[in-house]
Formats: sequence, C-alpha cells, structure tokens
Amino acid sequence: MTPDLDELAGQLPDGVLLVDPDRMDAYRWDRANDPDAGVPVAVVRATSTEDVQAAVRFAARHGLPIVPRGAGTGLSGGASALDGCLVVSMERMRAVDVDPVTRMAVAGPGAMNAEVKAAAAEHGLWYPPDPSSYEICSIGGNVATNAGGLCCVKYGVTTDYVLGLTVVLADGTAVELGGPRLKDAAGLSLTKLFVGSEGTLGIITSVVLRLVPAQRPPCTLVATFASLDDATQTVLDITRRMRPAMLELMDHASINAVEDVTSMGLDRGAAAMLVVQSDEPSTHGAAEIAEVTAICEANRSTEVFSTDDAETGTAFVVARRMVIPALEQKGSLLLEDVGVPLPELGALVRGIAAIAEQHDITIAVIAHAGDGNTHPLIVFDATDHGEVARARTAYGEVMDLAIRLDGTITGEHGVGRLKKDWLPAYLGPDVMDLNRRVKAALDPQGILNPGAVL
Amino acid sequence: MTPDLDELAGQLPDGVLLVDPDRMDAYRWDRANDPDAGVPVAVVRATSTEDVQAAVRFAARHGLPIVPRGAGTGLSGGASALDGCLVVSMERMRAVDVDPVTRMAVAGPGAMNAEVKAAAAEHGLWYPPDPSSYEICSIGGNVATNAGGLCCVKYGVTTDYVLGLTVVLADGTAVELGGPRLKDAAGLSLTKLFVGSEGTLGIITSVVLRLVPAQRPPCTLVATFASLDDATQTVLDITRRMRPAMLELMDHASINAVEDVTSMGLDRGAAAMLVVQSDEPSTHGAAEIAEVTAICEANRSTEVFSTDDAETGTAFVVARRMVIPALEQKGSLLLEDVGVPLPELGALVRGIAAIAEQHDITIAVIAHAGDGNTHPLIVFDATDHGEVARARTAYGEVMDLAIRLDGTITGEHGVGRLKKDWLPAYLGPDVMDLNRRVKAALDPQGILNPGAVL
Repeated sequence: MTPDLDELAGQLPDGVLLVDPDRMDAYRWDRANDPDAGVPVAVVRATSTEDVQAAVRFAARHGLPIVPRGAGTGLSGGASALDGCLVVSMERMRAVDVDPVTRMAVAGPGAMNAEVKAAAAEHGLWYPPDPSSYEICSIGGNVATNAGGLCCVKYGVTTDYVLGLTVVLADGTAVELGGPRLKDAAGLSLTKLFVGSEGTLGIITSVVLRLVPAQRPPCTLVATFASLDDATQTVLDITRRMRPAMLELMDHASINAVEDVTSMGLDRGAAAMLVVQSDEPSTHGAAEIAEVTAICEANRSTEVFSTDDAETGTAFVVARRMVIPALEQKGSLLLEDVGVPLPELGALVRGIAAIAEQHDITIAVIAHAGDGNTHPLIVFDATDHGEVARARTAYGEVMDLAIRLDGTITGEHGVGRLKKDWLPAYLGPDVMDLNRRVKAALDPQGILNPGAVL
Repeated sequence: MTPDLDELAGQLPDGVLLVDPDRMDAYRWDRANDPDAGVPVAVVRATSTEDVQAAVRFAARHGLPIVPRGAGTGLSGGASALDGCLVVSMERMRAVDVDPVTRMAVAGPGAMNAEVKAAAAEHGLWYPPDPSSYEICSIGGNVATNAGGLCCVKYGVTTDYVLGLTVVLADGTAVELGGPRLKDAAGLSLTKLFVGSEGTLGIITSVVLRLVPAQRPPCTLVATFASLDDATQTVLDITRRMRPAMLELMDHASINAVEDVTSMGLDRGAAAMLVVQSDEPSTHGAAEIAEVTAICEANRSTEVFSTDDAETGTAFVVARRMVIPALEQKGSLLLEDVGVPLPELGALVRGIAAIAEQHDITIAVIAHAGDGNTHPLIVFDATDHGEVARARTAYGEVMDLAIRLDGTITGEHGVGRLKKDWLPAYLGPDVMDLNRRVKAALDPQGILNPGAVL
C-alpha cells in the first residue's frame, strides 16, 4: 500500500518533498554504487529540524524505512536507498556559524567539511578532521561515520571534535545532546553514542564542533623505499618517537597510478612511498623532519626529499589525495578501509598483496600508516563478470585478514551495507547483541536506516 | 532473605570475599561522604575479570544491587554503598602494561592515574588527563566518570584517550569493546558509551589507553587581579588567541586558604589569580607566555610573574592543587563541579558569590577556567545543623544557576547520587527518557549501581 504522500507534502514547505522518479534517481546511491540500491517512494530535502521531524513521524506512522543522507560520498553503502523508503537528505541544511570566543562552530549536517574548515579559517581557527573527500563530503556524514582522514595521527577523528548534536529520534522527537561546553559528565555519553551510528539511531540535524587554533605551515618529507617492509618499519620507528601531523603510505601500484596521470616524477620503481608532515613551530618542524630523514635512511630509503615550503609540500599531499581519482581511470573500484594495530601493518599489506596475486586482480594500497588504517583499492572491470566476482571475493578476504590480525573491518568509512556481513565475525556474538539491544531501545520499530550496520 | 554468601565465596579465590563488618566499613563511602550510605552484605575485592563475572552473576541470580568501586575518591557519591548491596572493588586489579611501539597502555581499573602516568613516563610517554586527585584516584574511576583535570584545556578529557575497554555486563558476560586500534568505525560507539556511565551499564575490568609523547617542560605564569571580571575577561582573551596547556583560576577565598597553610606570599588582597602554562617548544613557550602577560596587563592585572623554570612553575601548580586540602582544614566541604559556556564564566562566579552571601556561607571558587569548568567549594561546620542545611541549599542553587546559564551540573565529577535530583532539570524529559532506555536495554534488572545518575 502506497502511503499518502500528499499528507506529508502538506506538512513540509514547498519544494521539500521530491517524488519525481527521474529527480529521485540521484538519491539512490552513494559512492559505494551498491548494485542492490532500491527505489525510494519520496525524497525529503529537509530545510530544518522540523522538516526532519515531520518526515520521521510520517514514516513511523506508515512503517516506512528511512534512509538519511548527507552528500552521498559514503564508501560503504550506508546511504543506499531501499525500495519503498523515504530518503531524508540534509543537503540544504548547510549553515555554519563560528564563535571565535568559545572556539566552536555550529554546523548544519549538510555543510561540506571544507565549508566548516573555511568558516573556521576566517577566524584563524581550524577544524582538523580531513577525509580525502573533504571538499565534497558533508559534516553530518562525517559525524554519522566518525570519519577520519590524514591528520588524525596527531589530531584524532571526528568524535574528538563533537561537543553537541541535535538529533531527531525514531519517533520524531528532537533532542539536544551535549552542547557548547568543553566538559560535561552529566548523564550517559549519548553524544558520543550517536557519532558513528550511521543513521541507525537517529538523524543528526545540527552539530556543535570544537575548533582549535590554525595549524602552522607544515614541513613535508617524501621518502621512497625499495622494500615494503623497510617502509612499514620506518612507520613504527617514527610513531614510537614522535607524533607527526601526517604519516601516509602509498604502495607501488598507487605511486604508478598517480604518476600515470600527473607525471610528477615519482619513482615508478619504488615499492612504497611515505609522505610525512610536521607542524611543530618554526625550527622544531624542520628538526622533527630531520629526525624522520635519519629514520628513513636507517631503514634503507632509496630517496628522501624534504621541504619547509608549504606549497611544495602540498603538491605531495595532493599526489597522495590523487590516488583514488587516478585509479578510477583504470576501472571500477572497491574501496577497503581495514585497520590493524600498528605492528601488524606490514603483515596486513603483505597479506593484501597475496590476496591480489591469488585472485589475479589489482589491489593498490594507500594507508593512513601512522594510524594503522589502510585503504586497499580493488580495481576491476565492471563489465567482466568473472573479474567482478574475484574483486568481491578479494574484498571479503581483506576483511577476514584484518580480523585475523586483530584489526577492524572499517577504520573510518563505516559498515554501511557493504560490510555488514563481516561485522559479526569482527565483533563476536556478545558485542553484536549489545549493539542490537541499543538499536532496539532507540528504534524499536526498526525504521532508521534498516539493513545498515546491523 | 540473606543470600548464601558461601556460594559466592566458593566461586572466588581465597581472600577475595570480605564479609567482616568492620573491614567492610571502609567500602561504604567515597569522598562525597554521603550521609545516606548503606551497609553492604559483602565486598568482592576482585583480582580478575572472572572474579567480577562471578560476583555479577551471583548478584543477578539473587537480585542484589552492585556498587562498583575504584579508589573511592569520587566526589558525587557514585560509589556510596547501598543497604544489602554487593560492593565490587577494583583496587587489586592495578597492573599497567605500556607498549611504546603502539604508544598505548593496558591498565587494570584499580591502577592509580599516577601509576599510569609513571609507567608511560618510563618509555618517554605521557597519559595527559590529570584530575587534582591523580595520585590517589583510579583509572577505572576516571573512565567511569569521564574525569578531567588541569591539562584538559589543551589535551582533552579521559574519553579522548580511551581506545578499548573490557566490561562485565549486567548478566555477567564479559565483552571487549574497541581495542588497540587508533581508528575503528565498526558498529555503534559502545566504548565511548561506557566512558562516563558511572557503573550503571557495566563494570570496567581493563582499559586500553592512548598515550602521547612526553610533555615538554612548561613555562608558567601567575597573575593577580583586583577585579574578578578582569580575570574572567583575561581568560576569554587568552582562549580566543591560543591554547595554553593550563588555565586555572583561584578566587579570593581560595588564595587566602592556600596562603594560610603555605605562606607562599600570595597576594591576600587579590580578587582572583590565574595560573597559566604553555608547553610549546623552547622559545615558543616563552613567547606564548609573553603574549599572556600582555593580555593580563591589558586587563589591569595587579601583578604578573612568569618563569621558564619548571620547578618554580610547579610550585604555583601545587598551590592551585592545595586549595582543597587547605579548605578542608577550615571545615567540611561540599565540592561542586558546574561548567558553563566560556562567555558565562564571569556570570557564574558572580552568581556563586551572591549565593554565598545570601546564605551566609563560605564558597571558595577554583576553576579550570579555560574549560569553563568551576569547582565552587562550599565550606561548612558539620556540627552546626543550620549551616549544614544552608550549605546543601547553596549546593543546589549553584546547579540551578549553572543550568540557567546554559551550563552543566557536572563537568568532570559525574552525577553519582548527590547530583541526580538535578539531572532532569538539566537534561529535560526527552533526554532523560533516552538515558533510561539505554540503561534498561543494558541492565534490565536494574542491579548495576542503582540510584546513581538516574
């Protein structure tokens, strides 16, 4: 039975409810391109918390599943539409207000991460978390997945910056959790519970974020290695001695994919490349990078280049950020996000290479190496059914490998729909049960993003 | 009906179960000295997760309330015993293992905060959170209350350092949440949910903590002000420009209480004193402190003293930490813990002075000023019934005031039993309901620390 959408339309401002199938098509997928994405009955392009409340109440009354959606850049299919669902898009709620006195921002969930950064920068402030997609991903999606990025090795992940949330619950009630207070120990830590809940517990309609003083211009180092093991040992030797502001790894396939499109002069023969930044003040940044240089050389780096020129350094960071678009030119991608305790980083990357070889498929690896968080990028030809099958098998085997190494199936992208089959093996039955009990307590009807995570 | 304690004794190692009333007396109170504390039927001094599981299963079978307990330094009565309860003390589970490669510590909940710091320091590492009681408070209690301290203005609170927990649930199941992984987005953020849950959702039996490189020797500044408003304005002018490693405020009564016992030469006439530290490297610390000096002078400070000698600086931090013991010599104390958005700090401190005057009682104020988190210390004569009543009235009125100023009733001590009557006014009915639903989902029998928080 189709619910009476006119009823919902009457509760929303003009233009908020979208029912035209052609226009709804753009709201069916996120960047995971889930082939099983369904067809929504309507899309609510909310302009306010009240719009979201009206949508959730309507869905609760009619038992409709709701799929909340930020900018649609999720990589785990957490925002794939379901047949007959109501998509609630936050794209129009993107105001950002910065208070320089308290060093906080209040942001609409649809604001881009880059827009929050820009608004903070106007006041000499900084919002650190920086997913590679920061220019096109929304802050609401960042909160929903507890997104990370490149600076996390020193500055932590999204949850470390979330002080408060406005959330619409499964029955349409809107609650304020936390707020503009730097410390708050009153009641259960519900703000933190909603961070990373991927739309399964409620819909975030406003975020209070902690900002910090602007980052200092960094010094940057790039080092290449003939051996992957030397590179991962270098990572361990760095992290035990200091806390760099960035510590990224690109493997042979990633280096070559970037060089194919940029001709930057990267060493195509290298097994791995590290990009390291220090943002310690003035000469201390250079001193930290000098120490990293010595560590690289002690681990048989083939070339080390460092600079205190911010622009030159940025070029190498751009190279790192180019890996995904460069690989997208070679085929379809399955983006993995497994993480391991740091000492297992080498074993993880070697194991991934073995999986790639076994299934005769390309898997390029980039890693937020200082966090032990890797993004194996599985490249495949979507028109070749055999290769698609092999890619999917490899995708699962990489997660199995991470679990064996005491690692996680997702460091910063979330479980969504693509990874949920592996969650029980990672968490075990007791923690799965705990997840289900919390979910059932907050969404007894099970209408909030059903099929995601759990 | 008294449960058969022999049954429980048979499931525990020798010496773990304590039933002697005299010896149990020490387990009835925490530092809040709750006059309503009850008498337990037994105390389990657990040596392992298995001991805790045996205790919880026994309690669940017999419907006994359980009160978990760390070092008993809580200030909100979260560890006050209940009549007929089982106290589960973690004091014997205090091993600390540091892994310098991953920069993490695995700590038993009974380990002192200072023991974690010391174990980290052996490897050139640092565990930042530093409650004033860090030498005598346990890490498990710190996690249970999401404890803060003096360094939080730059380094955050306990939850920012908790990567993993082992928790015994209400049915005796032990679960591992999170672990030695710097990023983990798999499943709901249950690790963070248990931080700050004050023993109401489960009993923490092990903690995985993130460590950071050792703090650099700080530069320290002490400034006095003839006007409280000038001091709070100085706080705002500092925090909008930089992130000091410490930013503490002592009011007139606190300064004088410390001077009474130390004769350090503090200015007894000052309305307020700020203690500020910078741990930026070498000359940058001194430069930051020079900027603070200028800000103080612009706000009419009466005296500013700064030093880059760590030992001299420590003397002033010790003075700040002396406030509570110094006031304890003047009478009994009720320790408050209210916090407000930073711009309201002046209004809060002025309002507290008005409450003190109205009830003819001494309230000294110390504050983690950079966090907007204050500790009004209500001094009273416990033998004077009238004064006790006025102290309790003032205690509540300070919380009412904080709520009116959009503040919290507890920044870092927790709600426990002393503050729970104010929690509904702070959170409102909808968030209270959300708290109760999560509690009911995880502890349906309601045996975990009943009467605390909710």
